[in-house]
Formats: sequence, C-alpha cells, structure tokens
Amino acid sequence: MPSARLAEYHGVPAAYLAKQLQALSTAGIVESVAGPRGGYRLARPATDITVLDVVLAVEGDAAAFSCTEIRRNGPGACGPSAYPKPCGIARIMWEAEAAWRASLGEYTVAELLDGALRDSPAEQLPVVATWIQEVVR
Amino acid sequence: MPSARLAEYHGVPAAYLAKQLQALSTAGIVESVAGPRGGYRLARPATDITVLDVVLAVEGDAAAFSCTEIRRNGPGACGPSAYPKPCGIARIMWEAEAAWRASLGEYTVAELLDGALRDSPAEQLPVVATWIQEVVR
Repeated sequence: MPSARLAEYHGVPAAYLAKQLQALSTAGIVESVAGPRGGYRLARPATDITVLDVVLAVEGDAAAFSCTEIRRNGPGACGPSAYPKPCGIARIMWEAEAAWRASLGEYTVAELLDGALRDSPAEQLPVVATWIQEVVR
Repeated sequence: MPSARLAEYHGVPAAYLAKQLQALSTAGIVESVAGPRGGYRLARPATDITVLDVVLAVEGDAAAFSCTEIRRNGPGACGPSAYPKPCGIARIMWEAEAAWRASLGEYTVAELLDGALRDSPAEQLPVVATWIQEVVR
C-alpha cells in the first residue's frame, strides 16, 4: 500500500508516517515493494510480529529510565568504582520496564488485525478487510 | 532534612528538587516540618510507600499512552458512536502500563532504603545511615 494512501486512510501527515515507515522498514517489520501498485507491506507474517517489535522499532529500544547515578553526586559520595552494582532505584525501574515489554510481547500484529476486523462498524468492514489484505504477507 | 541540604547531598539543583518535594508533599508522601531543624521527612512509614506511589506523585498519574482514536480519521471512518470500545492498540498499551505499575507497586521505599544501606561503600555508610534516620518516620 502506498505511503500516501496509508496516511490518508489514517488521517495523519504523510511526512510523519513516512518517518515511522522508515523506522519499521529498518527494523525489518515492513518492506517496500516497487512498481505502480507498490508501497509498503509487512515483511513477515503478522503472527511473527509482536506489538513490542513495533513499539521498539518506532520508539527506539533504549530503556525509558536512564540512571544518572545520583549516588556519585554530592559531598558524601565516593568514586564510581565504589558502586559496582546499579542502584536499587534503577533496578526497580528496569524490572518494571521488563514487565511492560513482556506484556507488549504477548500480542502479535495478527491479533491486532483480527481485533480491528471484529471491532469495525459493519459499514467500514469491507474497507478494513481490503486494507488488511493489501498489507499482510 | 532541609531541602537545600538534600539538594547538596544529591548534587541536584535546589529549584529542581523543591519542585519534586512539592509534588511529593501534595501526594502525601513527604511532609514539611517547621523550625530550625525543620525540613522534609516522609509523611508515613517507608514500608507504606511504594515506588509506584513516588513515581506517580512525581510524573503524574496520567496514562503514558494516550489514544488519539485514529480509527475515527481518514475517508473510510465512521462517527465516534461507531466505536464503543477502545481500540485494540490502546487496550494492549494500557495493559502493558498496568504491568509496569504493578511491578513498581511491589517495592516499597523501605526496601529502597535497605538496599541503599546494603550497597553503600563502607566509608559512606555512616552518612547514609544518618541521612535515612533523619527522613523516615
């Protein structure tokens, strides 16, 4: 499906969508197909792409919590070598991020597409079904 | 403990810290004590304050993922009343946030303080122990 049609379908700016599609393409989630009927489609079966794959491709896979090692600041602090382990706050924040990622990893794009069909108003169903057919492998 | 000493201890700007302490105070996590030896301390036992309480007080408790109802956009879309349920993407993102919150809710500030003592370099231990004594209930 051409990027411009996809942008129109979702009512988002084409430049914004192009950037996300580029990120998804770099991550191997979508691929571009050349030719008059070309555009983007999924690079692998929707059952093999988790929601986590998509989120990390678009948002980047850096941890949301970045530890600034506050323990090394202030008058009472020792040098970096005195703190071999990450601090307790960072460990807890990262564990919560792991739980967030695990939750997103439980769902696939295939399930999203099934849900989109299930939740579509009857009059929009043909449009959604055609759209899905054009973008999946 | 006075806000200024806390800022010096952590090596962070006093104005930045004052803003966070105000948020924590509003949330009932810390309280200010008047007088020459006044300042901030925890408003309740550290065992009764979860890391989630602190994070939500500082970051706000709005959902990180905000659904813009993209389904209602584009030429094929129907009116809002055609989509009674939140979309599948939003449901999955919110479920992941719930997992993140649940994980943060498993730890208390008391455990953080215990960990800070356990991980402190020997020469910093007295400073950390005194600091904790001054701020807990």
